Amino acid sequence: MSKAYAAKTPEDLPPVGLILSMSGLDYMKAVRDGEIAGPPIAGLMNIGVHEVAEGRVTFRGTPEFFHCNPMKVVHGGWYGTLLDSALGCAVMTTVPKGSVYTTLEYKVNITRPIPLGTEVEAVATIQHSGRSTGVANGEIRGVADGKLYATGSTTCIIMKAG
Amino acid sequence: MSKAYAAKTPEDLPPVGLILSMSGLDYMKAVRDGEIAGPPIAGLMNIGVHEVAEGRVTFRGTPEFFHCNPMKVVHGGWYGTLLDSALGCAVMTTVPKGSVYTTLEYKVNITRPIPLGTEVEAVATIQHSGRSTGVANGEIRGVADGKLYATGSTTCIIMKAG
Amino acid sequence: MSKAYAAKTPEDLPPVGLILSMSGLDYMKAVRDGEIAGPPIAGLMNIGVHEVAEGRVTFRGTPEFFHCNPMKVVHGGWYGTLLDSALGCAVMTTVPKGSVYTTLEYKVNITRPIPLGTEVEAVATIQHSGRSTGVANGEIRGVADGKLYATGSTTCIIMKAG
Amino acid sequence: MSKAYAAKTPEDLPPVGLILSMSGLDYMKAVRDGEIAGPPIAGLMNIGVHEVAEGRVTFRGTPEFFHCNPMKVVHGGWYGTLLDSALGCAVMTTVPKGSVYTTLEYKVNITRPIPLGTEVEAVATIQHSGRSTGVANGEIRGVADGKLYATGSTTCIIMKAG
Repeated sequence: MSKAYAAKTPEDLPPVGLILSMSGLDYMKAVRDGEIAGPPIAGLMNIGVHEVAEGRVTFRGTPEFFHCNPMKVVHGGWYGTLLDSALGCAVMTTVPKGSVYTTLEYKVNITRPIPLGTEVEAVATIQHSGRSTGVANGEIRGVADGKLYATGSTTCIIMKAG
Repeated sequence: MSKAYAAKTPEDLPPVGLILSMSGLDYMKAVRDGEIAGPPIAGLMNIGVHEVAEGRVTFRGTPEFFHCNPMKVVHGGWYGTLLDSALGCAVMTTVPKGSVYTTLEYKVNITRPIPLGTEVEAVATIQHSGRSTGVANGEIRGVADGKLYATGSTTCIIMKAG
Repeated sequence: MSKAYAAKTPEDLPPVGLILSMSGLDYMKAVRDGEIAGPPIAGLMNIGVHEVAEGRVTFRGTPEFFHCNPMKVVHGGWYGTLLDSALGCAVMTTVPKGSVYTTLEYKVNITRPIPLGTEVEAVATIQHSGRSTGVANGEIRGVADGKLYATGSTTCIIMKAG
Repeated sequence: MSKAYAAKTPEDLPPVGLILSMSGLDYMKAVRDGEIAGPPIAGLMNIGVHEVAEGRVTFRGTPEFFHCNPMKVVHGGWYGTLLDSALGCAVMTTVPKGSVYTTLEYKVNITRPIPLGTEVEAVATIQHSGRSTGVANGEIRGVADGKLYATGSTTCIIMKAG
């Protein structure tokens, strides 16, 4: 069961040195267990980490009015933020202590509009975890009915910190 | 000069029928001129439409703490929301009255982290505007120095409304 | 067991009317069974359809010297041709009689160079099959060892023929 | 005027050591001037480098029957090979002596079918050239009429050789 929560002030976030002292997998588990605050954008977007395993991370979230475009349908940026979060964190679970990753690119395919107020989950799985790059793909599905709303993929670069 | 503002409540948004009664270009100009509210997610993300011409739309925005990931750097979802907004609106300016568009996919390349508090602009240009699809690409650059932060592209489908 | 073969002359290809008179799935099975010629580019690229099921198509192929870039490594275009073939055919298996599909976009992630002469397979799976669009993703892996060489995704538009 | 030609045998290709002893820009100019053979896949696909400048490379080519899919229209893999060639070479012109680049990913948007026998050109421009990555985008247009047939983008990683 996830106890993840989003940082509300800069002071809520852990020092960067603490993050670098942990493996990516340990860090992700600490966020899931509420021992370390998650990113502030998670609060804004009403999303949060749900499950963490090596090479696989699940986020859950529910889009509300504030995540809409003018037609009152969920904005593409909400899908992208949710998928990029899960995809990047899936790569993160394979990053060793003392290294960091950065997203080079991500792509989002939107297959169906998410009705406002519907809880969905993004499941991201690592496909390639090399010395210098990571590739992951993922899907957004309804929690209740498994309906597919979006798919996506990312390329990350992995570097020694400092 | 843009007078765009973001909707804060569902009542702020125009009726869908009003949007459909206008060409996409007229609608975008009305948002730019503050005659119609922009999308609520624009308020959340601190972005807004800046310039509108047929086939070309500019958004401006400034990322703040709430748009960060845990390393205190701007989250990939912020880049994606800004680019997807500009790209979709560039397609919108070519959509005739009575038709609507939906984003099928977008891709974001992040080339450099945006320092918090830096005003940037996303310029999106339509490359292909067909009967049933639109393709656009765009860039995010610093307003003050023109530095490139991200690039992106989108594919949209255009359909008769109703 | 696949009996697919590539067309060598325009006369080898079936009339377009014959293709339109079949469902996409029946057409793909006829190509697999060698009853209808496959695309000429398959001969050029040394690839061919291997397995066909509804929503899932496998291609196999072996890159040779002629598929190389100047560093004597397999050109990105070979990965793209193999993946686009499998992805498009996976969408094709869901297209009803009398309709056609066109590729709007595809993306390829290359994760590792394929050694010349190594047989690989591209497995593509449909993720979304709607009234007007299809989305599929896929992977290229070594036939002998399952090693991952590339991943990819596509968006297709589906239209009534004529 | 380009004098580029495609290698027909492994012996036609320059030794890798020679490529590494040149800057990427000098290498591309030598291929354009016919001093060094271009990639064998260029011969197969009937494409070749046309113009070279720092950060910008043009390829020209003409699709024929052998580049078709079963509907006798140009296969998506031909568009991808042409674009990936131009995009990668645009990145190559920014790679210093002793370094190499590898394509991490590329994306192709196809906007219109190229009629067989139509000469087209792919113009690729570098957008970001960093210490470890390069990002470029490009377009395929008709040589005679400038009609847009496809757009694309790539992410490359740049590494010290050896």
